[in-house]
Amino acid sequence: MIRVGVNGYGVIGRRVADAVSAQQDMKLIGVTKVKPDYKARMALEKKYPLYAATESSVKDFAKNSMEVSGTIEDLLKQVDVIVDASPDDVGAKNKEKYVETVGRAIFQGGESPGVAEVSFVAQCNFEKARGAKFIRVVSCNTTALCRALHTIDENFGIERARAVIARRGADPDETSKGPIDAVVLDPAEIPSHHAGDVNTVLPDIKLVSMALKVPTTHMHLHTLIASLRDRSVTENQVIDAFEEATRIMVIEGHSGFKSTAQVIDLAREMGRPRNDLYEAVIWKDSIRIVEGEVHFYMGVHQEAIVVPENVDAIRAIIGKESGKSSISSTNSSLGILK
Amino acid sequence: MIRVGVNGYGVIGRRVADAVSAQQDMKLIGVTKVKPDYKARMALEKKYPLYAATESSVKDFAKNSMEVSGTIEDLLKQVDVIVDASPDDVGAKNKEKYVETVGRAIFQGGESPGVAEVSFVAQCNFEKARGAKFIRVVSCNTTALCRALHTIDENFGIERARAVIARRGADPDETSKGPIDAVVLDPAEIPSHHAGDVNTVLPDIKLVSMALKVPTTHMHLHTLIASLRDRSVTENQVIDAFEEATRIMVIEGHSGFKSTAQVIDLAREMGRPRNDLYEAVIWKDSIRIVEGEVHFYMGVHQEAIVVPENVDAIRAIIGKESGKSSISSTNSSLGILK
Repeated sequence: MIRVGVNGYGVIGRRVADAVSAQQDMKLIGVTKVKPDYKARMALEKKYPLYAATESSVKDFAKNSMEVSGTIEDLLKQVDVIVDASPDDVGAKNKEKYVETVGRAIFQGGESPGVAEVSFVAQCNFEKARGAKFIRVVSCNTTALCRALHTIDENFGIERARAVIARRGADPDETSKGPIDAVVLDPAEIPSHHAGDVNTVLPDIKLVSMALKVPTTHMHLHTLIASLRDRSVTENQVIDAFEEATRIMVIEGHSGFKSTAQVIDLAREMGRPRNDLYEAVIWKDSIRIVEGEVHFYMGVHQEAIVVPENVDAIRAIIGKESGKSSISSTNSSLGILK
Repeated sequence: MIRVGVNGYGVIGRRVADAVSAQQDMKLIGVTKVKPDYKARMALEKKYPLYAATESSVKDFAKNSMEVSGTIEDLLKQVDVIVDASPDDVGAKNKEKYVETVGRAIFQGGESPGVAEVSFVAQCNFEKARGAKFIRVVSCNTTALCRALHTIDENFGIERARAVIARRGADPDETSKGPIDAVVLDPAEIPSHHAGDVNTVLPDIKLVSMALKVPTTHMHLHTLIASLRDRSVTENQVIDAFEEATRIMVIEGHSGFKSTAQVIDLAREMGRPRNDLYEAVIWKDSIRIVEGEVHFYMGVHQEAIVVPENVDAIRAIIGKESGKSSISSTNSSLGILK
């Protein structure tokens, strides 16, 4: 059994804790939190051992009658791998602590690439990450871009690609963030950071990325345009490639998927926990080739898509299992069909 | 004096009526409305002669103590040109009436191109439209695309272009329209209708357009990617071309224009009526050339951008003035700086 700790119990940490608990080869040793809020209460109700993320928060938990099993330091002594799910840039500050104790950690995409030896998307570079001590799971948008572009590149070759990302303004519970009635250039300069981030996983893909922030909470929506090396490729071949790839869900607009809203409604109808969609979602009807350039729309559930990557990254760090085998275990445990 | 009537007093009609009133060579003979609402009241307060758009609405105006000068038929007898600003597809139904009376009409972009002899954007094809009896002013998005692409094509040559349009979901007063929390594919199929519509004005531009609908009310936001024939072009040359073009406003993100919201706020600060922006608005910081492809963001005020085109289309139909002269008169009367 791989003994796993999760440092941080926010959007990603909560989901990774559940996903780790669902693995037959892993044991969730505990999770950490700073504040004694409803999320901490839910962790205790799930019987997840709760650790105070800082010394100073121990008292706060006691005041709120929440039993903690110790502090982050106590948790680190008991685990084989720590998944850092703390806010952006906090992970890097935690690294020293991990180096001195566990020696093996997974960071999220909010950290700069230098925090780890490998930036990771399971179906793109699992073998490269195998046996590394520090792995960075890239952000939600980068994960989706890598899955889709890698699939096209492996099958048909990509000469160059362009991505326009309409980002959700905030997660559903982030009530203090905007925008309410504006499209924000994120940033006004082109390219956005996503292109460079894709290159941390797929160094050979030429990509220009552009990002906007819009007043939605549920998904990012990508518009992709890729020039293909193989100019004879048909739309059906592209559809087949996406249908065959793991962690890509192909849907059709004329089945009722007119927007991101119906996609999330599907996840609810499927009984997915927290309406999570671990797959990059591609609209079949949008796949259109014009003079050697393939165009399509892709939806990305920002809260969920990196969850399977975190699970696979744990196995990559341990180094015993192949990528194919890990992806297969993760998929079946999380209800990912292919 | 060119005697002008405006049939319809909604989003476009109201603005065109004001713009016509501001021209030294035109006289607004009257406007029509179906319903006796606050917009009709405002027309009367502005001393615009009000005509009932249908026979049946005459009574409704009387009931609401609003004095009408007659019906649309009475208006048509007195004008040299009628501007049809009725809802999508209603213009085509009105055409027969115009053929039998005035013989010269301007339609909006919601009509299919076949309604008129020429689809029109003043700085692109004024001379082609000169002397036509029926002119169609293209939609807001198509107008902006034509202004920007024509500028690039004239200066540097366009090999092919791609546009991703994040459309405002509804105008500020359209409270029954959505979306509230979703990105809608508009439609899921690629391309959207905009590419074909651009070709009604600029037949030689190869364009693939893609459109999304987002929960905003104030502006459309375009992301444009154009492959240039002249591969030696620099970003500064593109900026200069946009700076020189009429009805294109170049702004800078680092001056505080982080989103569409600040652009509309600028229009309010400039004292523009109804915060109208007649210009296509291009972010200077976004102009980026990567291996012969120029990328940039452009904002489009959907309610206002076609107003100067309607004024110029009136002069094109009369046929006495050149495009250059008409554009110059329209610009100075509306406060368009260049």
